[in-house]
Amino acid sequence: MDNAKLKNILTSVQSGKITVEKALDSLKHLPYEDLSFVKIDHHRHIRQGVPEVVFASGKKEEDVVTIARAIFRKSRKLLITRASQEIYKKLKIKSATFHPLSGMIAAGGERSATGHILVLSAGTSDIPVAEEAAVTGSFLGSRVETIYDVGVAGIHRLLSAQKALQSARAIVVVAGMEGALPSVVGGLVDKPIIAVPTSVGYGTSLGGLTALFAMLNSCVPGIAVMNIDNGFGAGCLAHKINTTT
Amino acid sequence: MDNAKLKNILTSVQSGKITVEKALDSLKHLPYEDLSFVKIDHHRHIRQGVPEVVFASGKKEEDVVTIARAIFRKSRKLLITRASQEIYKKLKIKSATFHPLSGMIAAGGERSATGHILVLSAGTSDIPVAEEAAVTGSFLGSRVETIYDVGVAGIHRLLSAQKALQSARAIVVVAGMEGALPSVVGGLVDKPIIAVPTSVGYGTSLGGLTALFAMLNSCVPGIAVMNIDNGFGAGCLAHKINTTT
Amino acid sequence: MDNAKLKNILTSVQSGKITVEKALDSLKHLPYEDLSFVKIDHHRHIRQGVPEVVFASGKKEEDVVTIARAIFRKSRKLLITRASQEIYKKLKIKSATFHPLSGMIAAGGERSATGHILVLSAGTSDIPVAEEAAVTGSFLGSRVETIYDVGVAGIHRLLSAQKALQSARAIVVVAGMEGALPSVVGGLVDKPIIAVPTSVGYGTSLGGLTALFAMLNSCVPGIAVMNIDNGFGAGCLAHKINTTT
Amino acid sequence: MDNAKLKNILTSVQSGKITVEKALDSLKHLPYEDLSFVKIDHHRHIRQGVPEVVFASGKKEEDVVTIARAIFRKSRKLLITRASQEIYKKLKIKSATFHPLSGMIAAGGERSATGHILVLSAGTSDIPVAEEAAVTGSFLGSRVETIYDVGVAGIHRLLSAQKALQSARAIVVVAGMEGALPSVVGGLVDKPIIAVPTSVGYGTSLGGLTALFAMLNSCVPGIAVMNIDNGFGAGCLAHKINTTT
Amino acid sequence: MDNAKLKNILTSVQSGKITVEKALDSLKHLPYEDLSFVKIDHHRHIRQGVPEVVFASGKKEEDVVTIARAIFRKSRKLLITRASQEIYKKLKIKSATFHPLSGMIAAGGERSATGHILVLSAGTSDIPVAEEAAVTGSFLGSRVETIYDVGVAGIHRLLSAQKALQSARAIVVVAGMEGALPSVVGGLVDKPIIAVPTSVGYGTSLGGLTALFAMLNSCVPGIAVMNIDNGFGAGCLAHKINTTT
Amino acid sequence: MDNAKLKNILTSVQSGKITVEKALDSLKHLPYEDLSFVKIDHHRHIRQGVPEVVFASGKKEEDVVTIARAIFRKSRKLLITRASQEIYKKLKIKSATFHPLSGMIAAGGERSATGHILVLSAGTSDIPVAEEAAVTGSFLGSRVETIYDVGVAGIHRLLSAQKALQSARAIVVVAGMEGALPSVVGGLVDKPIIAVPTSVGYGTSLGGLTALFAMLNSCVPGIAVMNIDNGFGAGCLAHKINTTT
Amino acid sequence: MDNAKLKNILTSVQSGKITVEKALDSLKHLPYEDLSFVKIDHHRHIRQGVPEVVFASGKKEEDVVTIARAIFRKSRKLLITRASQEIYKKLKIKSATFHPLSGMIAAGGERSATGHILVLSAGTSDIPVAEEAAVTGSFLGSRVETIYDVGVAGIHRLLSAQKALQSARAIVVVAGMEGALPSVVGGLVDKPIIAVPTSVGYGTSLGGLTALFAMLNSCVPGIAVMNIDNGFGAGCLAHKINTTT
Amino acid sequence: MDNAKLKNILTSVQSGKITVEKALDSLKHLPYEDLSFVKIDHHRHIRQGVPEVVFASGKKEEDVVTIARAIFRKSRKLLITRASQEIYKKLKIKSATFHPLSGMIAAGGERSATGHILVLSAGTSDIPVAEEAAVTGSFLGSRVETIYDVGVAGIHRLLSAQKALQSARAIVVVAGMEGALPSVVGGLVDKPIIAVPTSVGYGTSLGGLTALFAMLNSCVPGIAVMNIDNGFGAGCLAHKINTTT
Repeated sequence: MDNAKLKNILTSVQSGKITVEKALDSLKHLPYEDLSFVKIDHHRHIRQGVPEVVFASGKKEEDVVTIARAIFRKSRKLLITRASQEIYKKLKIKSATFHPLSGMIAAGGERSATGHILVLSAGTSDIPVAEEAAVTGSFLGSRVETIYDVGVAGIHRLLSAQKALQSARAIVVVAGMEGALPSVVGGLVDKPIIAVPTSVGYGTSLGGLTALFAMLNSCVPGIAVMNIDNGFGAGCLAHKINTTT
Repeated sequence: MDNAKLKNILTSVQSGKITVEKALDSLKHLPYEDLSFVKIDHHRHIRQGVPEVVFASGKKEEDVVTIARAIFRKSRKLLITRASQEIYKKLKIKSATFHPLSGMIAAGGERSATGHILVLSAGTSDIPVAEEAAVTGSFLGSRVETIYDVGVAGIHRLLSAQKALQSARAIVVVAGMEGALPSVVGGLVDKPIIAVPTSVGYGTSLGGLTALFAMLNSCVPGIAVMNIDNGFGAGCLAHKINTTT
Repeated sequence: MDNAKLKNILTSVQSGKITVEKALDSLKHLPYEDLSFVKIDHHRHIRQGVPEVVFASGKKEEDVVTIARAIFRKSRKLLITRASQEIYKKLKIKSATFHPLSGMIAAGGERSATGHILVLSAGTSDIPVAEEAAVTGSFLGSRVETIYDVGVAGIHRLLSAQKALQSARAIVVVAGMEGALPSVVGGLVDKPIIAVPTSVGYGTSLGGLTALFAMLNSCVPGIAVMNIDNGFGAGCLAHKINTTT
Repeated sequence: MDNAKLKNILTSVQSGKITVEKALDSLKHLPYEDLSFVKIDHHRHIRQGVPEVVFASGKKEEDVVTIARAIFRKSRKLLITRASQEIYKKLKIKSATFHPLSGMIAAGGERSATGHILVLSAGTSDIPVAEEAAVTGSFLGSRVETIYDVGVAGIHRLLSAQKALQSARAIVVVAGMEGALPSVVGGLVDKPIIAVPTSVGYGTSLGGLTALFAMLNSCVPGIAVMNIDNGFGAGCLAHKINTTT
Repeated sequence: MDNAKLKNILTSVQSGKITVEKALDSLKHLPYEDLSFVKIDHHRHIRQGVPEVVFASGKKEEDVVTIARAIFRKSRKLLITRASQEIYKKLKIKSATFHPLSGMIAAGGERSATGHILVLSAGTSDIPVAEEAAVTGSFLGSRVETIYDVGVAGIHRLLSAQKALQSARAIVVVAGMEGALPSVVGGLVDKPIIAVPTSVGYGTSLGGLTALFAMLNSCVPGIAVMNIDNGFGAGCLAHKINTTT
Repeated sequence: MDNAKLKNILTSVQSGKITVEKALDSLKHLPYEDLSFVKIDHHRHIRQGVPEVVFASGKKEEDVVTIARAIFRKSRKLLITRASQEIYKKLKIKSATFHPLSGMIAAGGERSATGHILVLSAGTSDIPVAEEAAVTGSFLGSRVETIYDVGVAGIHRLLSAQKALQSARAIVVVAGMEGALPSVVGGLVDKPIIAVPTSVGYGTSLGGLTALFAMLNSCVPGIAVMNIDNGFGAGCLAHKINTTT
Repeated sequence: MDNAKLKNILTSVQSGKITVEKALDSLKHLPYEDLSFVKIDHHRHIRQGVPEVVFASGKKEEDVVTIARAIFRKSRKLLITRASQEIYKKLKIKSATFHPLSGMIAAGGERSATGHILVLSAGTSDIPVAEEAAVTGSFLGSRVETIYDVGVAGIHRLLSAQKALQSARAIVVVAGMEGALPSVVGGLVDKPIIAVPTSVGYGTSLGGLTALFAMLNSCVPGIAVMNIDNGFGAGCLAHKINTTT
Repeated sequence: MDNAKLKNILTSVQSGKITVEKALDSLKHLPYEDLSFVKIDHHRHIRQGVPEVVFASGKKEEDVVTIARAIFRKSRKLLITRASQEIYKKLKIKSATFHPLSGMIAAGGERSATGHILVLSAGTSDIPVAEEAAVTGSFLGSRVETIYDVGVAGIHRLLSAQKALQSARAIVVVAGMEGALPSVVGGLVDKPIIAVPTSVGYGTSLGGLTALFAMLNSCVPGIAVMNIDNGFGAGCLAHKINTTT
């Protein structure tokens, strides 16, 4: 998995610096830290391009804080999603910022990528998810622009954003209800589009399944679809595309 | 239910022309003809604005033919949906026409309504359902225009049809896959829009449920939605709206 | 999109009154106002026949108030759906009325259409949705009549409403549970019927999906179906049909 | 389970006629015949009121024939559901009749119950399922009347059948599409109503689930609901009710 | 609908006692009382065998009280389902009893039917629904026996209840989770069985859908199935069967 | 069901020690205790290998306490699942322990089985369900090891647990979200694997259905799947496998 | 993954027998054979306890034959599921047997395990799936007994099989429709039970989902559930349990 | 929409070369060709990066051929998906190739992009969808590598492909059944991953929905998900990412 390290071990065995038993052993000491109830993987960044991120929803506040501090101590970077003001207060990391709209806490983060990401939202109710994508992309190091409330019922609003659409390297399109916006955007530009369905709507919106399925069935080929309300994932993918070389 | 007839019966009782028993009896002889396996309701037109129409799918060919002839004999009008060339051949009604694209057989039909209906289809695969709506509206007496293959992935195609959109009294919008077209059309014009989801698509199109739910969740208020592939119903409603006075 | 304005711009270019660059620019200044977090579209009425309406559910109270005031300032008309008494109090628009049964706030509104709309409800639990349709239709300018609690289990109640059924130009039928009322009404009259399923029921009512699907499968052709609990949409469509000319 | 037999065995043990071991053994020889691939239960009639019936669909033709003959040999009665003309031909039981509309084969059967069952169908496409109920009820010994094609879109047809509704001891109501007929019938009479949803319809009829759920949600209390297309079950239940004393 | 009354009107017209116009008019004055927001149908008992019952869930407390008093004033009988202690307190009807386990309020009620109903529950969590069936059946006039906690995992418990099973005229079987009890009971006795699925369970119990579908698919023919948690409906049907003559 | 006892009764009848009637009677007095609202089955352990366990969720606190004490009095063992601190306090059984993570209360329990069970969790949010399995297995008498937070996104973590995987007699794998961990574990070892989907996730995790279906579709043959969040069942099955001889 | 081999490589590096580069290389030559379109994994037996099995359904006949021969050549053992007579003919492996009922082809196979597996089926239509489990278990080396057609509607049939139930080490219970058999069996014996839902049924059997969910919701704790119609998986798991030491 | 052209028209108006009326007119003559039943959009490549592609499934053979030729005539490039050998024969375009595994017809196509795409399949049954992605990516101009049959049950197969994983610019991962492969791949590399669920599987694979939902719920952030079996879309997106600059 880690070619350099493996070669190093083999060379040490060859040169007699370490015994076979020790070599076998060291292969088992992989680089993660054990907090007993959670194994924090400090090398994830190398493999997945996304540093350890904490998904706070459904975890106990104290656990979130404990995990978050362990990560920050090691890497000086931290991103928490679906967090509350309470977690932010307990965290007591000076450089951390709380983003109330998306419920995110960010500390550190990169600042380097050329090119930028565009995040669109269909309605105003979709903004929290759009913000999650924007904050994530920004934290990972991409430049991010946002245009909100450009849904298909007023197609001229979207048309006035043509220039912004053309200049981005990846476009995140966040929409609930009928989820039609990605198709219309995809008909206008030749860029990787990342569609995020939201749970905005009622009745047959089925908690976002309708928007999700509509996006998967887009008549525009090659639209990437995320899980419902998964702005974080969209931000990650947009950043990966933006930094692909 | 039929005020005039009821009054007539009551008057006859009053005048002694018929006995009470006969009056009670005659109230039971409502105006439908009994073919033993199907009660044909010749007065449906008066009540529902749509003459007796035969839905052929799932019925035996001979039954369809028997029912259809009984209807035509009485009213000199006939519409069969989801029919086959075989039924058409066995029917042997000279004035009947077979519409192969929509699988419809029509004979007689009205020709009078002022105003007209516009039928749009998103893709070419949606045309059979769109044709079902168009043939139905036309059979019932409305003037019908059609514009096909104007889906949202190429929004400029739709924009070039603006004039046609503005001049219709009711617009039927037929779309499969993500079902986004009605929302975009609804954002452009102030007309009653009748959305028909089709079963065109695969995977998560779920046989048309995705398009259906997307249309029900349209961000444009007041879009009328039909059952999946129900072009016939859309034609009926469009005609009712076109002839509302 | 706006032929007259476009022609005007072109004429100005022709006459040299404005430069090509300015013309290109002005095409981008479409008539909507930017509140930074929401683009309010003051021209929607012209295109869609429905003035800007605020859907309060899922939005922050302050945002609803800010948006609502911006709309009212410009157009002297306002409709808020799924609103609370709290929003009404914070709104402080004198001419506004709060409708507690349907949770709507209305200010201004039209008063002109000839013809009228009839709103029926199957049960008493369906009344809030029926009221939403009635208040909406009335706000938009249609005359509205209502008859509530005329479900199919007591078919004689409905039969006594025959005259009202015959005189309306569009009939909104609101029903939960098995959603059978639109079919029975549709068998009695030759008018455009708008069926609204409600989430009333339990177990296999599936939050209204059962009533929705029953309505979509009505054996009466041409019934327009709305999303679950979408009384607002039904009011819009009924008004559009009532004012179609 | 079989008190008399158990007592008999115990008495024999007491009197020394049989040993304890034999008694234990005989308790295991329950009254069914083993055909190796299927255990035919000749005593089912005593326990469940329905003699052994063969559900042909999904079984091999030869197996159906073998099982059917074993049953008929023992009890001189036989009912096969979802059978084909081919099975009928191979069966070679003289007294057997093939009912093509419902795909049933019946031989023997009872003829005794006082009171009668009424079977209604909403449309003509629902007749096969209605016939399955009627043939089953008749086979079990009930007198059966049928009235077909009395769906809710033409409510006057049903009203003319009032007398028949009032005189039956149990009413089977078969309906596809929106499944509204049982509610309307249930609003008219005070009799046990057995609702059978059919898979007639398309799109959101969801293979009969919509009619099923509509029936389960009937606003009339106390309607018995069967599985989709389960005319056989409805015939059984109607007969049980008809013969309850 | 009401043969006697209709004949009376016709005779009066014949004898000149009333005019035709008056006759027409009187046909419209059907026997229900209008409370403006709810039409109370005092003749429902005659048609459906179940007096007006109030389903409290989802209605406002005051409305429930108003409706309930109007019913009780007229008929001296009353049944409210899914009610709370609060409603009971506000109701102030002396003869009314509150059943806390099932959340029912009953006043008056019949006391006459011969034969009795047996109500079984699979687990202890199913008891509230079983009680709803038992209280309803008792209110309507049937004698009711109950045996609770006899689920299939301990089949010997059920076998010890054989005598009770054999003596009832109708058996209500209430079960959640896998919903297997009705099949096992149906294999033991030849009586009409009414299966009521409950929402007891978690995960794939899907709020009772699993038990519902299992019951609809019972390998025992002729089991009547109710909506999820619908003990009230089961009580009604059991009583109808018990009193069928 | 209980061969020895049955033989005993028969022998007593044979020897004249008891009468036939008494024998018949005694067959009905099966070994369970009647608490009126719940039949506690003290012999369940003999038949099912799991002593009476109380599932607290959805039961009233007092009922849980009453049932639990009755069980403990008889068997000196007790396990309550989905319990709260409140129930624990009211229970007042000295030897009982409250496990807050899994919400379980255990008293007594076995301590004997050779071999051990391994419980894995994919994420930290899956730990409560994993703990339920571990506490259950331990209570029943198996030795239990646990390794948490070894999900597929960091496959090296799992690989480092290879030795533990190889030494267990049964492996419980608890995972939410995409539910992929059992397949990967199943590809590594030749042991019975018990997969438990959890409701951890959002959007299309569908409350655990996605993980459940993924596990049922595992490309590794022979994985046992439990209901969503059913750690208790997994602990039971693992113990049964561990003690199969 | 393969400790011995890894140690061997390390020792060779240490002793200078192979270079570091060669060591790195050899770690990549894992023991599977590449047929270009499918990687056959000859070591799967060691890791998963199940030799390479071919799932024929959905694969081209020639591909199945090619893969099957490659496997048989190496291991002299072979199992193909969901196969046809045609594949069997083309295969031309002398020692192979075709099992028509379950559509399986088996060649070689083990013959050693002590203890045995019991396979039960609820109905005769469930036998193909039961046979798949039985043939699989037998092929893997377990002794297998089968008892078919012992569904819950005739509970005495099952009770007569008590001895067989008690003597097996694992019990596979195959059932369609309401899927109730595993719960009843689980209430009788203290053995690992493997429930297999089948797609037998119609309407709300939902292609086996109803039986699946019923089994997952069994009131008997610790029942292992397989995918719909997955007799093969059940045979694998039963064998694993039977051979766990 | 087309800035250059619009400017050109405006300049022509300014210079008097064309009249205002002609300018208005020319804005309506957008660059698509009307074949009456389908509007072919020759400029789609410019906007969406994907030339006009024909989706053959569900269209008539002759229509596919007519459309395909019109496209090829204009652009000398053509891609048809879900095509048959018959369409290929009727097409008679010399440079076209038929890909039988994926049912695709390709003619012309680009050949330029630097960087390459990697396409993985979990099983052999997933290869047709994987091939659709590979042929599409190749047609659009990307270099494509493929590695098939590397599912999670044999994790060492995937680990041996590490180098290939690291060198691609985008990775398409095609998997049916439990759909776990993308998560494992995503845990190994820091590249944009495009997951394609397939309909391979049975029972609870639900036609691919299970794999789809599993992928959407991946514990690895930022995985792009496509519709079920949508290899074409994956190829498009992978190419867009590969050519993003």
